[in-house]
Amino acid sequence: MDPKDGTLLGIDLGGTNVRAGVITQDGQLLHWQDKPIEAARGPEIGMKTIMQLADEVATHTHLPIAALGVGSTGPLDRQHGSIQNPYTLPGWEEVDIVTPLRKRFGVPVALENDADAAALGEAWAGSGRGVKRMYMVTIGTGVGTSLILDGQIYRGLGDEHPEGGHILVDPSGPECYCGAHGCWESLISGPAIARYARESEMTTQSTYLNTYSLEDIDASTIFTGAREGDSICRQLVDRTADYIALGLASLMMSILPDRFVFTGGVMRSFDLLEERIRASLTRFNVIIPANRVELQLAKLGQQAGLFGAARAAQLLLMDTLS
Amino acid sequence: MDPKDGTLLGIDLGGTNVRAGVITQDGQLLHWQDKPIEAARGPEIGMKTIMQLADEVATHTHLPIAALGVGSTGPLDRQHGSIQNPYTLPGWEEVDIVTPLRKRFGVPVALENDADAAALGEAWAGSGRGVKRMYMVTIGTGVGTSLILDGQIYRGLGDEHPEGGHILVDPSGPECYCGAHGCWESLISGPAIARYARESEMTTQSTYLNTYSLEDIDASTIFTGAREGDSICRQLVDRTADYIALGLASLMMSILPDRFVFTGGVMRSFDLLEERIRASLTRFNVIIPANRVELQLAKLGQQAGLFGAARAAQLLLMDTLS
Repeated sequence: MDPKDGTLLGIDLGGTNVRAGVITQDGQLLHWQDKPIEAARGPEIGMKTIMQLADEVATHTHLPIAALGVGSTGPLDRQHGSIQNPYTLPGWEEVDIVTPLRKRFGVPVALENDADAAALGEAWAGSGRGVKRMYMVTIGTGVGTSLILDGQIYRGLGDEHPEGGHILVDPSGPECYCGAHGCWESLISGPAIARYARESEMTTQSTYLNTYSLEDIDASTIFTGAREGDSICRQLVDRTADYIALGLASLMMSILPDRFVFTGGVMRSFDLLEERIRASLTRFNVIIPANRVELQLAKLGQQAGLFGAARAAQLLLMDTLS
Repeated sequence: MDPKDGTLLGIDLGGTNVRAGVITQDGQLLHWQDKPIEAARGPEIGMKTIMQLADEVATHTHLPIAALGVGSTGPLDRQHGSIQNPYTLPGWEEVDIVTPLRKRFGVPVALENDADAAALGEAWAGSGRGVKRMYMVTIGTGVGTSLILDGQIYRGLGDEHPEGGHILVDPSGPECYCGAHGCWESLISGPAIARYARESEMTTQSTYLNTYSLEDIDASTIFTGAREGDSICRQLVDRTADYIALGLASLMMSILPDRFVFTGGVMRSFDLLEERIRASLTRFNVIIPANRVELQLAKLGQQAGLFGAARAAQLLLMDTLS
């Protein structure tokens, strides 16, 4: 077989589930399955689950596989192909995931962290398709970013992953574990939105929020309140939109991407945030025309990591063949 | 002649002078000259001066020229090879500088804006030599930035130049023509440093600054005062260093370059700023090790633009030959 004709096997490894799928080289997902990873039972059992799942999806499609890619919850050691993640995968330290897969399938195996894989997937087969410079922003429990240039992951110093979620946005903002005050994540992540609401005096004046005890208020409570017309919730949402815009403005100035692509739990309420983000951004458009930089939601959802893992496999394959 | 053996002719066009030089393909400056551009006399006379100067340096070295590059004060229309700069070159609108040079020398001619050319020059033959990701920051009357990736200029949306000098640093800061409050330039440029000092109550308590009338205080006054031991001037310098660090921290987070290279009038006082900038940066090093990102002064000085123009010529030549 010409390796360019083979399919790509993508594996998306999270703290809870592992998913595997077979994807064609032009980005069609043919088949996928997932299983609980049962991380707490340790890496040996986990690796067995992964190998078995990969076998199952490969057997199901019965097509030759040209390369395999893994997108995994990090930290990783990409150079050694191993997972170093005792945080969300307890006991998984220096677990070589690449060698066993390479031996089993006899093809090149790529390893990327899950955030980069998701961005790679969106750039390849989702909202970044055909876009020269895509900047993906994941706003959820934390804020993660990934820059895809010409379909490849941009890497910084030491080939490491930049942390655009921790750009500084407001020095008078709350302290973050990153060491800074008022970094982007400390202002717009789900927990940051909720914390601000719980500590704000405004909250006591909200008829909607008053039906909750303080400790039960999370970001989704506030978005729901805004949808139901509560004006305090609406103000909290607007405040979030303004801070999202401040960070985007800085990223626009420093990177000037063609398109921002959003994902993550907070961005499920993009419809509530979008207008205000755009209005905020146009205030900064004197030297760079803010309205030319596109804002879009990611479209692959839960499958972004799978597509990205397959795309990482394809890029490695192209590298190997060139 | 094999084009790879020819020399490169670089032209650096500013609002006051034009400089031209012959540089070898391995980055040795063989000869250079400059002349006043007398911009006010219009583009026709100016173009004559440029052509004559280019002839003179080419004749002087008597070596074959393989390609020619121009670094010019912008705005430019790179696609049409023309200068659109009525601001610092009055009357120079849509002045095609590339075609006459190409006709005269019969070689490829590149055109870059002066900030990108200077960064390209430093990356090729100065403080960015051998550095994979160099981020140059010019702090002077304004704040300009340029990212050089693998020896090439990074360009944003529409192949335009990002404006890292206008990342947002402190929303409570002064208003800037860019539309934002507290962008980097509004806090650390020479005029911004001077304006803050003139408006600050601290200034009235400085024995050094009290010897000046308010309107005579500029950034260099403050740096000189700090050198002479004036504690208020020292505080103003520290404040500047803190704001420089805030911007660098954001750029570190979003781009994670291997090295920042500094130039511009304010950075002539880098020795007064450096320690405080480094101390400030280490406060943000929890997730990205700030001390691994190098801070260096540019080393080509006034010749950076000439080297960069030659390097742009070389890159175009390599493109043409491939």
